[in-house]
Amino acid sequence: MAADIAEQPSGYARLLEPAHVTEIARVAAVIADRRPRHLVLTARGTSDHAALYASYLAEIRLSLPAGLASPSAVTLFGAQPDLSGALVIAVSQSGGSADLVEVVRAARASGALTLAVTNAPDSALAGTAELAIDIAAGHERAVAATKTYTAELLALLMLVEGVRAGSGRLPEAELRALAALPELAERTLADPAATELAPRYRFATQLVTTGRGYAYPTARESALKLMETSYLPALAFSGADLLHGPLAMTDPDVPVLAVVGSGPGGAAMREVLPRLAERGADVVTVGAAEVPGAARIAVPDTDERYAPLLDVLPLQRLALTLALARGEDPDAPRGLKKVTTTR
Amino acid sequence: MAADIAEQPSGYARLLEPAHVTEIARVAAVIADRRPRHLVLTARGTSDHAALYASYLAEIRLSLPAGLASPSAVTLFGAQPDLSGALVIAVSQSGGSADLVEVVRAARASGALTLAVTNAPDSALAGTAELAIDIAAGHERAVAATKTYTAELLALLMLVEGVRAGSGRLPEAELRALAALPELAERTLADPAATELAPRYRFATQLVTTGRGYAYPTARESALKLMETSYLPALAFSGADLLHGPLAMTDPDVPVLAVVGSGPGGAAMREVLPRLAERGADVVTVGAAEVPGAARIAVPDTDERYAPLLDVLPLQRLALTLALARGEDPDAPRGLKKVTTTR
Repeated sequence: MAADIAEQPSGYARLLEPAHVTEIARVAAVIADRRPRHLVLTARGTSDHAALYASYLAEIRLSLPAGLASPSAVTLFGAQPDLSGALVIAVSQSGGSADLVEVVRAARASGALTLAVTNAPDSALAGTAELAIDIAAGHERAVAATKTYTAELLALLMLVEGVRAGSGRLPEAELRALAALPELAERTLADPAATELAPRYRFATQLVTTGRGYAYPTARESALKLMETSYLPALAFSGADLLHGPLAMTDPDVPVLAVVGSGPGGAAMREVLPRLAERGADVVTVGAAEVPGAARIAVPDTDERYAPLLDVLPLQRLALTLALARGEDPDAPRGLKKVTTTR
Repeated sequence: MAADIAEQPSGYARLLEPAHVTEIARVAAVIADRRPRHLVLTARGTSDHAALYASYLAEIRLSLPAGLASPSAVTLFGAQPDLSGALVIAVSQSGGSADLVEVVRAARASGALTLAVTNAPDSALAGTAELAIDIAAGHERAVAATKTYTAELLALLMLVEGVRAGSGRLPEAELRALAALPELAERTLADPAATELAPRYRFATQLVTTGRGYAYPTARESALKLMETSYLPALAFSGADLLHGPLAMTDPDVPVLAVVGSGPGGAAMREVLPRLAERGADVVTVGAAEVPGAARIAVPDTDERYAPLLDVLPLQRLALTLALARGEDPDAPRGLKKVTTTR
């Protein structure tokens, strides 16, 4: 898991090489040309959080209504949604999940434009969809996904910005900004703050993660990493939903990891922090925003769209370090296999 | 909260009176006539779980692609999704949440057919949407929503089945089947199993709820009730997502409430139960399916579509009883107000 985490800066650099930029631009051009009316995303586990990120991107950057679909409506209940006019994107590290293959097959049959985003270009999922993007993250050794998650994020970001451009090709300014990501990711991983923070949660019995907008997938994904590796029940809420009920649960014994960036999502989170303070919650903030008073894992400042590619890095390291501190083996989470098959 | 819970059978009966059946049929007829291409649902907190139920209904019963949209893309990031051809349904007990009002206003301006499902026909939300349905649940006294949740479920079910019929009117067979619900709900609430089970969780430090398909919203909603009233960190997973990671977290110290009905969702959950057993998890099943070996809260058998209107009832009572056993006041959850305003 440590090796997978460390490879993420070079994973960003690889995906930004001309061959992959061109491949993604080709897919983006097809999508721009077909002008889908709405976007349906389908995924499981970690990839579901990459899909969630893409749904924000699509709505905000493309004015394209986007939603996440549960495969079970199709696979268990035989639903046959009419997806003509829709773009359906399945996101899966392995490309091997039978339920996603079935959803994509049904979507394609009903007239949808289908795209598989996987780390396995020869997978059943990539073969079933009309279009495919290879996230090119290389073999992921650990069961807990890290480098494939961030490669999915970057591939989806490049795709959306390519569609936005119309031609499929990333604008020069975007390419230049993206080119800074590998070095920013190196800097983020070099910061020892996350590792130093792990002892704080050595005896925690639960944890809450929260974020808004682009940062909400980061909150979800870091909660999953903590559950998978440290077996720590970690509850992820959007900052807004937290105020609609779960806030009651927080007290001085409940640690909160709040992802607070420098854009509109971060600004909205600043309204959530005082409510958490009222409840005496133990809050650590993660991200580019300087928040007075709170313990903080600082992350280099970038456009809030890019922040999910950096903010999650220290949280992955936190999960890893905490698992080791609790005597668990993060490379072999109990009860899990690398490829999970569900229907 | 106890009084609100007890009113649910009469709430079902009220919504099934001719005046409300006719009102919902009128709305359903407009929707059937406009033939939306896809459905976007938006809600917060408990109502988000009713929206999730409606998304399954739409996909399975109407072949209508459905997804839940986060208000923040619009309210924080200024997204302007093109929703012409979409049906946008906002679900809210109070109808007072400013973010939902803004989402509905933007959707209507972009050409969507908009519908507000609320317990407040004079609310800003009901006034902003083109169509409105009053769930007629009466004043809800407790902060933790119970009777408004199940009234939202029934109203959405009646709406979807009316749209499916084409005319908006519920088919006679459906009306007859629905007419049994008040009595089935009475029987469900009369069963002491949920109350008797509460001591089992007196000292629990966490809990997992799970279900698939129509039962997944029940898992989500009961987790929220346990968090709001007993301050117990309760993690809800679809049975499939549970296998994609969080399964690692379950061990003999982690109680699991599994909603297992008698239809396809329940059948799929039966494949999850052995995996939980391998991990030594403490599983209690809730629902119509007889599951050998597991402790169980039995619920009368119905069509799986109707099960969410019954399965959640004992889980609400469990949350209430457990809160009292833990010395908490379920009528005044710390840090919460009845109407939460987010943006």
